[in-house]
Amino acid sequence: MLTESQLQDFVAYLRIPSISADPARASSMQTCADWLQGKFSRLGFHARVEPTAGPPVVLAKRAAKGAAKTVLIYGHYDVQPVDPVALWRHPPFEPFIENGMIFARGATDNKGQTMAHILGVEAAWSAGGPPVNLIFLLEGEEEIGSPHLAEFLSAHREELACDAIVVSDTSMIAPDFPAITGGLRGISCLELKVSGPAVDLHSGVFGGSVANPATELARLLAQLHDADGHVAVPGFYDAVADVSPAELKSWRDLPDYDAELLALTGSPAVAGERGYGSRERVWSRPTAEINGITAGYQGPGSKTIVPREAVAKLSFRLVPNQQPRVIADRVAAFFTARAPRSVKVEVTYDHGGDPYLTVSDSPAFRAAQCALRDVFGREPALVREGLSIPTVSLFKRILGRDTLLIGLGLPDCAAHSPNESFPLRNLERGIALHRALLTRLAEAL
Amino acid sequence: MLTESQLQDFVAYLRIPSISADPARASSMQTCADWLQGKFSRLGFHARVEPTAGPPVVLAKRAAKGAAKTVLIYGHYDVQPVDPVALWRHPPFEPFIENGMIFARGATDNKGQTMAHILGVEAAWSAGGPPVNLIFLLEGEEEIGSPHLAEFLSAHREELACDAIVVSDTSMIAPDFPAITGGLRGISCLELKVSGPAVDLHSGVFGGSVANPATELARLLAQLHDADGHVAVPGFYDAVADVSPAELKSWRDLPDYDAELLALTGSPAVAGERGYGSRERVWSRPTAEINGITAGYQGPGSKTIVPREAVAKLSFRLVPNQQPRVIADRVAAFFTARAPRSVKVEVTYDHGGDPYLTVSDSPAFRAAQCALRDVFGREPALVREGLSIPTVSLFKRILGRDTLLIGLGLPDCAAHSPNESFPLRNLERGIALHRALLTRLAEAL
Repeated sequence: MLTESQLQDFVAYLRIPSISADPARASSMQTCADWLQGKFSRLGFHARVEPTAGPPVVLAKRAAKGAAKTVLIYGHYDVQPVDPVALWRHPPFEPFIENGMIFARGATDNKGQTMAHILGVEAAWSAGGPPVNLIFLLEGEEEIGSPHLAEFLSAHREELACDAIVVSDTSMIAPDFPAITGGLRGISCLELKVSGPAVDLHSGVFGGSVANPATELARLLAQLHDADGHVAVPGFYDAVADVSPAELKSWRDLPDYDAELLALTGSPAVAGERGYGSRERVWSRPTAEINGITAGYQGPGSKTIVPREAVAKLSFRLVPNQQPRVIADRVAAFFTARAPRSVKVEVTYDHGGDPYLTVSDSPAFRAAQCALRDVFGREPALVREGLSIPTVSLFKRILGRDTLLIGLGLPDCAAHSPNESFPLRNLERGIALHRALLTRLAEAL
Repeated sequence: MLTESQLQDFVAYLRIPSISADPARASSMQTCADWLQGKFSRLGFHARVEPTAGPPVVLAKRAAKGAAKTVLIYGHYDVQPVDPVALWRHPPFEPFIENGMIFARGATDNKGQTMAHILGVEAAWSAGGPPVNLIFLLEGEEEIGSPHLAEFLSAHREELACDAIVVSDTSMIAPDFPAITGGLRGISCLELKVSGPAVDLHSGVFGGSVANPATELARLLAQLHDADGHVAVPGFYDAVADVSPAELKSWRDLPDYDAELLALTGSPAVAGERGYGSRERVWSRPTAEINGITAGYQGPGSKTIVPREAVAKLSFRLVPNQQPRVIADRVAAFFTARAPRSVKVEVTYDHGGDPYLTVSDSPAFRAAQCALRDVFGREPALVREGLSIPTVSLFKRILGRDTLLIGLGLPDCAAHSPNESFPLRNLERGIALHRALLTRLAEAL
């Protein structure tokens, strides 16, 4: 059971409307950082609120007597905006408990999971504590892309030196079924523009006599996938690393995901690359997605024009060892080669991020597996996730360490959506988990 | 040569900013109607400014002594908006003459062509005038779709009874090369919506595991045409009436249009249905055009989502004897049959209009040919135009008469665009033409 004091801490943290995307919440960002500094200070940490060009970073450190190894715990205290606020059943910053769930913005992402770490450390130390030095690094800009984190990591590289990094910002398979996330997809984003006439044309006066850029865009986009859902860009799969048979088998042994996928998305049916299950499609297969299309008239009724141009936003999720720039170049060549000469095609690279795959036979990784087994009483799944977490790549690049991604969220916790929630049981389990993890890491590192 | 008084009339008419789409110009609409009433009254017409729920209609009538037949001349005194006004080299309502061209909004569409009619009548009557009764019907809502014209025609059907209708709102082939427009395309407008997930999804968390509506929309749209540019909807061409070999030959004998088409549109190349020339494609072939597409994220940079829906606006230009509703139904069936079950497809009919084909061996038609030959010294081309003029269908339906479409515009007069112009020579020729036409019609009807 959670103690009254633990619950009060969590509720107090959730009450602070720390929306990083909203300039009007700047003072709440400072309030939230100050609140964390106070909490860490009461726990005996040396805690600082470090300014950045954006919201401050909270850095809390405590050395353990006789400890040679250091664990860095990363999280973020900022939360997503609350729009559309009308869809919330309770005000998003007035935490509401119902059937063992706490509803509030940030409940899962990331305040609940951060709180499990903090309260886990508190519990561990109350009981004497393991001999491991701790660093908490909590930023306030994760939800807006961590624009100042790389600079902060570089500037504080020496004092952030560590032997393991732990992040709880991912998901479990199901209640009571824990997971370690060993891989993340990368991304390559670009824009495809097809242009034709100098201006929008009257479709009566000219329709049928010149190419329609919207039609040509559709014809290009329709070629992105073959009939089996494979990406048709030559060389697209060249660098894709195989998933080991053991890892594949472990995924196929997991409970069926299709029904959950339909419930989560509201889609009429599952779909995707032939020959792969839904989890494999997201965790280990690269994709080509159209994120948006804009062309011509989009208002009510009709406007009978041949639009002068048509634009699609595309993103490609990448898996090890695909490279964002290489993929973007191949996609550009693909579209350029297929465009008729009656239109002009331009492909503009926007940004990208590398895929990530952790080493799963390290001492830290095995320590995490043990701690999860200790607390949940079952073997954790070794999963991947389909999204990209750029901070993990930053840690690897700047601090030189892999990250243990041990999530306490659940797929239906509505992170980023109205009525975000977190099971109080996951907070309780998370406190036990992180207490156990420190012990296991102290032994293993 | 134009007289000073004729030019002054034209300039005065062009100076009135009668933009029907702009509610702030309501008083200018009234001013313009009043100005026309004054002009007609001075010419001896019984002229009225008739209110409608929108801008008024100007109705001017004059019976000729001993005349049994009546000619109705239709035009519109409203003009298109002037945006983007920064692209005009001179203020759009301060007519500017340069190299024999007059630049002003409405110069061609439709004030110049209407003025040729009015001044043609004035010239005819100064010389004794032909024995034919005249009705001028000038509306102020053509540029916004003539929303009140059908009601006006129905309410005034008896006093609008006539033996021929003349409209000058189309184009000549080239300077000195006149044309009669014998056919217009119809239209069928609809919206195609493809929807999938209940909300926009995170493309990392879900990308690759459910269908992307934007991708499925592109795949549907890409099937609209075959590789040769034919519309691939089954039955689409079933009702298409053949163009007579003589008419086809007359089009093929016209000066080449491709270079002009490229200059007018700025398109990189001509394109369209294989086996047809550019004029045939626009004049006598039905088309499927995408007028707009909207899906997902369309702002700067990237937003990595699987959009919940994707929508395309489509319009089909129709030729005799295609029917708007039949075509829309076939298109709906086509998309529905081709959509995968992983998305939902909805097709919504918006509006349509029938294609139009005039009888080209009527006495009125032959009279027009003679008048054009008299004035231009060459046989007029019998052309069609690709656009739809709904008023022509209204006249046929409510007044029971075909319309003589005798245009004085030129393709490069920039109707609807900045720096609209009209050659003063076309006004001069138009005055002579309409004077001759009244004589020819009086003889023929």
